[in-house]
Amino acid sequence: MSPKITVELLRQLRQAMKNSKYITEPIQAYIVPSGDAHQSEYIAPCDRRREFICGFNGSAGTAIVTEQHAALWTDGRYFLQASQQMDNNWTLMKMGLKETPSQEDWLISVLPENSKVGVDPWIIAADQWKNMSKALSNAGHSLVAVKDNLIDAIWEDRPPRPSTKLITLGLKYAGLTWQDKVTALRGKMAERKISWFVVTALDEIAWLFNLRGSDIEYNPVFFAYAIIGISSIKLFVDSKRLLHPAVREHLELDSPSKSELTIQCFSYESVYTELQAVCVALAPKEKMWICDKASCALTQVIPKAHRSAIPYTPLCLAKAVKNPTEIQGMKMAHIKDAVALCELFAWLEKEIPKGKVTEISVADKAEELRSQQKDFVGLSFPTISSVGPNGAIIHYRPLPETNRTLSLNEVYLIDSGAQYLDGTTDVTRTVHFGTPSDYEKECFTYVLKGHIAVSAAVFPNGTKGHLLDSFARASLWDSGLDYLHGTGHGVGCFLNVHEGPCGISYKTFADEPLEAGMIVSDEPGYYEDGSFGIRLENVVLVIPAKTKYNYRNRGSLTFEPLTLVPIQLKMINTDLLTQKERDWVNDYHRKCRETVGAELERQARKVALDWLIQETQPIV
Amino acid sequence: MSPKITVELLRQLRQAMKNSKYITEPIQAYIVPSGDAHQSEYIAPCDRRREFICGFNGSAGTAIVTEQHAALWTDGRYFLQASQQMDNNWTLMKMGLKETPSQEDWLISVLPENSKVGVDPWIIAADQWKNMSKALSNAGHSLVAVKDNLIDAIWEDRPPRPSTKLITLGLKYAGLTWQDKVTALRGKMAERKISWFVVTALDEIAWLFNLRGSDIEYNPVFFAYAIIGISSIKLFVDSKRLLHPAVREHLELDSPSKSELTIQCFSYESVYTELQAVCVALAPKEKMWICDKASCALTQVIPKAHRSAIPYTPLCLAKAVKNPTEIQGMKMAHIKDAVALCELFAWLEKEIPKGKVTEISVADKAEELRSQQKDFVGLSFPTISSVGPNGAIIHYRPLPETNRTLSLNEVYLIDSGAQYLDGTTDVTRTVHFGTPSDYEKECFTYVLKGHIAVSAAVFPNGTKGHLLDSFARASLWDSGLDYLHGTGHGVGCFLNVHEGPCGISYKTFADEPLEAGMIVSDEPGYYEDGSFGIRLENVVLVIPAKTKYNYRNRGSLTFEPLTLVPIQLKMINTDLLTQKERDWVNDYHRKCRETVGAELERQARKVALDWLIQETQPIV
Repeated sequence: MSPKITVELLRQLRQAMKNSKYITEPIQAYIVPSGDAHQSEYIAPCDRRREFICGFNGSAGTAIVTEQHAALWTDGRYFLQASQQMDNNWTLMKMGLKETPSQEDWLISVLPENSKVGVDPWIIAADQWKNMSKALSNAGHSLVAVKDNLIDAIWEDRPPRPSTKLITLGLKYAGLTWQDKVTALRGKMAERKISWFVVTALDEIAWLFNLRGSDIEYNPVFFAYAIIGISSIKLFVDSKRLLHPAVREHLELDSPSKSELTIQCFSYESVYTELQAVCVALAPKEKMWICDKASCALTQVIPKAHRSAIPYTPLCLAKAVKNPTEIQGMKMAHIKDAVALCELFAWLEKEIPKGKVTEISVADKAEELRSQQKDFVGLSFPTISSVGPNGAIIHYRPLPETNRTLSLNEVYLIDSGAQYLDGTTDVTRTVHFGTPSDYEKECFTYVLKGHIAVSAAVFPNGTKGHLLDSFARASLWDSGLDYLHGTGHGVGCFLNVHEGPCGISYKTFADEPLEAGMIVSDEPGYYEDGSFGIRLENVVLVIPAKTKYNYRNRGSLTFEPLTLVPIQLKMINTDLLTQKERDWVNDYHRKCRETVGAELERQARKVALDWLIQETQPIV
Repeated sequence: MSPKITVELLRQLRQAMKNSKYITEPIQAYIVPSGDAHQSEYIAPCDRRREFICGFNGSAGTAIVTEQHAALWTDGRYFLQASQQMDNNWTLMKMGLKETPSQEDWLISVLPENSKVGVDPWIIAADQWKNMSKALSNAGHSLVAVKDNLIDAIWEDRPPRPSTKLITLGLKYAGLTWQDKVTALRGKMAERKISWFVVTALDEIAWLFNLRGSDIEYNPVFFAYAIIGISSIKLFVDSKRLLHPAVREHLELDSPSKSELTIQCFSYESVYTELQAVCVALAPKEKMWICDKASCALTQVIPKAHRSAIPYTPLCLAKAVKNPTEIQGMKMAHIKDAVALCELFAWLEKEIPKGKVTEISVADKAEELRSQQKDFVGLSFPTISSVGPNGAIIHYRPLPETNRTLSLNEVYLIDSGAQYLDGTTDVTRTVHFGTPSDYEKECFTYVLKGHIAVSAAVFPNGTKGHLLDSFARASLWDSGLDYLHGTGHGVGCFLNVHEGPCGISYKTFADEPLEAGMIVSDEPGYYEDGSFGIRLENVVLVIPAKTKYNYRNRGSLTFEPLTLVPIQLKMINTDLLTQKERDWVNDYHRKCRETVGAELERQARKVALDWLIQETQPIV
């Protein structure tokens, strides 16, 4: 990995910071955040502005360039990578270390008095703008919105914004028409006396209109905005995408009769002026919803008196609770995914002794096997395929220069998933193809106990996911071990593999209560730096639990695993399991054998079926 | 219970609201909060202004009087009591019910335009003032500080502020001199470049100066303020209290040499003007700490540029981590407390069949037995002594009109504690003197399993208490049961029985991590309305845990029970316990027998010793 040479780029950017073509008064610093205008977790190549200016291409990081300095803030996952990818014009700011200043503090320490700090208001979230602006103005500086993005101004071969073909999802996949979803949303708006809602998150727009795209790798979304009124619908999307007859029919664009379910289409870029027009026409007490994580640019269009900023939108909540069709689809997707993984593991058992299987070749093979399954669309995230010490790097992705060969001597961890038209998967298995050490088995068994403790937990309606996080850790804690990531995240249905507003983490304080129909991951782990990594991940569905009593009629919930891939028995020290835990493993494996076995038989995949039967023997 | 007649009082208050003697312009509403000027949980009679104006004497509630209305907000614990204690001039606002408006919303709905709402700035916390003021001014009204308290103005026989004798605590009890504590505090101030700290919480002042008082029932504190500078100490307290030679000597008030450890004494009332004087003399960049829960009056004296409002003060944190002397004292206090309770239970077993023992008489007997122990000062809170259905009222306190007789047929719950010079206790036991039903035993056993799950938990350094809360509930949740209160609170050392900043609760998000030396309660419960209540409470000490491994060298913690009172075996369904849980009960009872047995023997309390031995037989 050689660093990106940025001397000339920085010179150009610093010129732009003084160029009256872009700004009325020179700015003394320019902030380049990671995200796009929709605060997406994964971004399209045209939005990789921070990577363009500094060379660092990790998923998290903010670059700041002043007249004299250039600095990049990122977290512990990326210290090594960032230091390798950036040249010495850049200072690496290691977030999480005590001596590392915050962006605000650093700016205040290096800027001359009364400085102006610029940022593109489209790619900074409203809540971040607020905090940064306050800190700077307390120190006598000011944060200013620079409408033309200065990186775009100097980025000669910047790729165009993708505008991929739209996929329409019928009732068979979506379970509800987009018209029903709009009507339900309006019901929630009416309840709270809200007359408009500005939708900015790409997965919310995709879910609302039962449309998918492929503008961003791994995330089946498309660039768009929507403004939903009590009696109007405004959709902002590249007009070329609406020429296809299937899309026109799906959205009823050519319907001669006009109603409150008629969609008005506008170009993607016109959202700003249209929102201004809507705001000008607002009656005195009208209120408009916008997520507090929406861009500062759009948020500030809405006059404060009319703005109701919310941490989670009603679409985020509605999308999280899957309907029966979506649940059925997620189940089907997980069965097909298990078929592919059973094939993969059966293949690995035969191939590994030959010494030619590498982290990258397994990832490719897994993708090939998944792609043979019905309604396969693509992967849901880059496959983490890691041998031995690479497994201890939590966000590892095999590259030619790190690629290790699988052997009979090391633990192998694979965390992978796919997008199918009927659902999204995300599964991690940790296996050993030779004989695991007692210590590896011990650690694996603690992780398994934690996984079961969450999966089998019974808890009252209204419980937030973060209250379950410690169940996943208790066995590890007992032995002085732990893992430094959360236990679970929400999973979309043929949508983003990470979605809010629920999750299972010690860090999440603003999560929403778990509800029947929500789908989350359950993925405790243990990582021994330089040696091995263990993670055991199922996607699980929140379901009502039958309990002996029912205190205050609140009702109880528990989880049903959707992922149905055997857990390697060889890695388990069964002496450490309670009878209840043994029963859980046996029940789980029985279900894998029945459900996935039937599908393997239907698909006549004999080798994988034999492997499944061998791997799902009950523990005695 | 007959309601207080408030017609005349309300007339007088409404006159005062227009009287230019107290206010420059008439106010349209007046808020009467619960607290005192130190935001104490328990308050002195002279501060019971809310009770005076409306009659309701529960621990939580806010009264608001407008020209036309009078309303009281309180929570579910007190709906019945408040409705019985208030006459029909008052509207009861049931907090927690959906249809109940917040104080702000209600004020906005009933006030004429541009109204002024008054409140005594001394008894409203700065953070509450901020929220209320913002809501009112958004609606065109304003919150105004009324310096003369209008309740005091009409309260003819208002008791004087107590000024009880001060108790000095030597090194034997405090473990550290007050001089050492001031020096350590200044170290923390210097670290954060803070030059002044305004101490407003009564328990922090008592702890800092190794002094105790009895101004507030159950809480060994005294009315005072302190302002600690880097080189000066200002103590604000009724000067009569400083006349006693022991106090003068303890505080070194007569020392001829002056140093940065010389205490300057001022009257309690002069804190406002002295703080003003300190603020006037501040250098441009000097910063002053004050807790964000301190009174609005004092907080606003400090100019914003100099004010650093903190959620927990360094004294709160320092006080929470007990030093070895305090730990030893707490252990001794709990042994003496266990002696008293063993005597009590032995006595109850003999007396109950006679049919004359009541909730009140047990509470009195418990106090009498505790008072026989060395260094007994008083109770640490009003004893909760409850039979059968009264046990389901979580904050029950027996009154003549509710007093039930103990029998062989009902569950009995006693939650009680005391102040000793060496420590504070708080213990709950739930027992049956006849034969408990299978259901009562089942519920008790779930509560016991939850208690053990917390008490035996091992967790990494840096873990916050709220991450342990679900351990206490898991067994109840499994059967569809739960309890609607937190699991534990911090406990002071010969100080308040409830103290911050740590605790174990699903509700607490701003708690500080648990540290070795902290002391908290572990008190899960189960309450069956109209039938019985179960709670099992030990006070436990956070101690380092020995673990097999030590991930990232973080170290682990666990708890050691300080409370050593047998858990009634008759209430346990041992079939529901795991072997680990049985071992825990047996270990606990062995420790009770050894430690408390030795003290019972020393005190020659033969009957109680026999009872202890009988109650600590191992479970097989």
